[in-house]
Amino acid sequence: MNSFERPNIRNMEGYTPGEQLLAPDIIKLNTNESPFPPTKRVGELLANFNYEALNLYPDPSSSSLREFIAEMHGLTPRNIVITHGGDEGLRLAMTTFVDPGEHCLFEDPTYSLYSVLAGIQNAKSLSIELNDDWSLPEDFADRAIKSESKLTFIVNPHAPSGRFLTAEALSAIADSTPGVLLIDEAYFDFVDTKLKYKTSEIVKNHKNVLVLRTLSKGYGLAGLRLAYLVGDEKLVAPIREKTADSYNTSKLNQELGLVALQDQDYANNVWNEIRIERNCLSEELRMLGFKVNPSQTNFILVESPEPKINAKEIYNRLRESGVLVRYFDTKRLKNAFRVTVGTRSQNAIFLEKLSVIS
Amino acid sequence: MNSFERPNIRNMEGYTPGEQLLAPDIIKLNTNESPFPPTKRVGELLANFNYEALNLYPDPSSSSLREFIAEMHGLTPRNIVITHGGDEGLRLAMTTFVDPGEHCLFEDPTYSLYSVLAGIQNAKSLSIELNDDWSLPEDFADRAIKSESKLTFIVNPHAPSGRFLTAEALSAIADSTPGVLLIDEAYFDFVDTKLKYKTSEIVKNHKNVLVLRTLSKGYGLAGLRLAYLVGDEKLVAPIREKTADSYNTSKLNQELGLVALQDQDYANNVWNEIRIERNCLSEELRMLGFKVNPSQTNFILVESPEPKINAKEIYNRLRESGVLVRYFDTKRLKNAFRVTVGTRSQNAIFLEKLSVIS
Repeated sequence: MNSFERPNIRNMEGYTPGEQLLAPDIIKLNTNESPFPPTKRVGELLANFNYEALNLYPDPSSSSLREFIAEMHGLTPRNIVITHGGDEGLRLAMTTFVDPGEHCLFEDPTYSLYSVLAGIQNAKSLSIELNDDWSLPEDFADRAIKSESKLTFIVNPHAPSGRFLTAEALSAIADSTPGVLLIDEAYFDFVDTKLKYKTSEIVKNHKNVLVLRTLSKGYGLAGLRLAYLVGDEKLVAPIREKTADSYNTSKLNQELGLVALQDQDYANNVWNEIRIERNCLSEELRMLGFKVNPSQTNFILVESPEPKINAKEIYNRLRESGVLVRYFDTKRLKNAFRVTVGTRSQNAIFLEKLSVIS
Repeated sequence: MNSFERPNIRNMEGYTPGEQLLAPDIIKLNTNESPFPPTKRVGELLANFNYEALNLYPDPSSSSLREFIAEMHGLTPRNIVITHGGDEGLRLAMTTFVDPGEHCLFEDPTYSLYSVLAGIQNAKSLSIELNDDWSLPEDFADRAIKSESKLTFIVNPHAPSGRFLTAEALSAIADSTPGVLLIDEAYFDFVDTKLKYKTSEIVKNHKNVLVLRTLSKGYGLAGLRLAYLVGDEKLVAPIREKTADSYNTSKLNQELGLVALQDQDYANNVWNEIRIERNCLSEELRMLGFKVNPSQTNFILVESPEPKINAKEIYNRLRESGVLVRYFDTKRLKNAFRVTVGTRSQNAIFLEKLSVIS
């Protein structure tokens, strides 16, 4: 036994990432990546990058990138901190706002990293089970108050169900949560534009709200690791000035992220395409007899019509036939699998394989 | 006042990075970057990079890079964890091995980030003042035992003095420190090869030693953020499996880092060049009447011949004339400045400006 680890680290389990590519011809619909490449401006910048300048440290404050993002949201650069993927943003919130022994709160089910991050910080994890339709229990805020939660995580739209919470619902929770409310908007880009939710409004109206956005999903840049937090100046300042590593964003990521964000036309086309495919795929799945949860994300939670065939077996047999979806081996999700919306042809192959199995 | 931060974060100061480039024509000898670009293989890889594949997450375990590094050191991939620059490695050691309230120990003076990281973790910082010649006091290990330090940091070669400790000296400390000994080898590449120190030997012989190496200095890749920790399997496992972010190394960094490490011929030529320039520069500084500390790094600690002119004034006047060196406004270092070894022509301009001032 290693006697050097802190006891809480020794006794915890680490986070298990979704399976990465096994073979080049596999159809990978298990980790919610974009099936489309990033804008070709990323490729052009890489091809012309002045690699010689990599000998110097990057701008520690990522100024240009933060200015552009602030403008996108109608906020100031003091509201923004750039992070090395969304996971760094989540970790920094834990480091900055939660003392060991204090409580954090999240939905159940949710992104399993939250409880791992709480474990590392030696904080206490509390979770509130979602209703049968994956909606938030009405007493969520009351229970947050009672728990004295220092950091509450809500994924919106929700993973793995795809459910969307309105700005009103989130505001009510922000008003009554005692600590910081982190709204993880990892999948926000895929929300129907008619829902008119604005990140800047909720940030402007709540001094305790921190919003996470990432370029991993909507901008096809999971391989890059680039995300950012948006929040009140006083909430963001200690993260940027104290708890984040000084050079947490490489020179490459600062420049590549900027060109990706600048090409909003390309990004919007991708998001529209995913929304259209999501709706078609949902319809086809329903026609195959599955229960399909309405999704505002780039994935769909599919419930299997037991007892005919169970979800784990579907997962295994899809995997054998070269299609990877995500199966969560937990009590609540044991009869469901999550499928990322792929390109039209990927989705067609997935449906074909699935129809043979089910 | 923001009431959300943890009290220890609220009461601490953040780390202040060295000044970054002010103007394109400035001679930047203040943050120990390499004055040479990385190998052109980095440029070639960037120019031909398949940007479309950035839509997928990177290999979370950085397998190829770890395998190559393990082989370089005659160790196994289980001895290696890749980090996002050296600072992430230092932070992860703090997160993994030090409980809030426990002690960490370091030399004084040393890299000022160590105490900042201890502050974030709410751990206690203890420092041991170096002797007048910047050597380690003989009772260093005894004081580490008494302090019950869970994590002791030694920079070797030392910053900001440039002093080198032998493997024997480090082994003696490793044997007697109660917790983990982190040897920060950020500047190791510039050590004279005749000193024959081997990282793998100290790691093989001590279950409590963690060594940090970085590509920022010796490989001209400060802008990239890539480093790694080497240590006993049991010391490295909880970092890689639990405390590090799952995708802490981007696809770009994994591939670029690998080609940079593979071109050892280029790297060795750069290191030799720096060693030669370091020796010339030291000699010239001595001839100008400065006290020059023998250096095994890519920088030189220069002490001013007070009371003729003080170091802060030298720093300011060099800055005005377009040459940036590092001045540390602390009691122990107030009569010294640190200058990074530049190219021959950068060093010549620095010496010319300095000779006019002093």
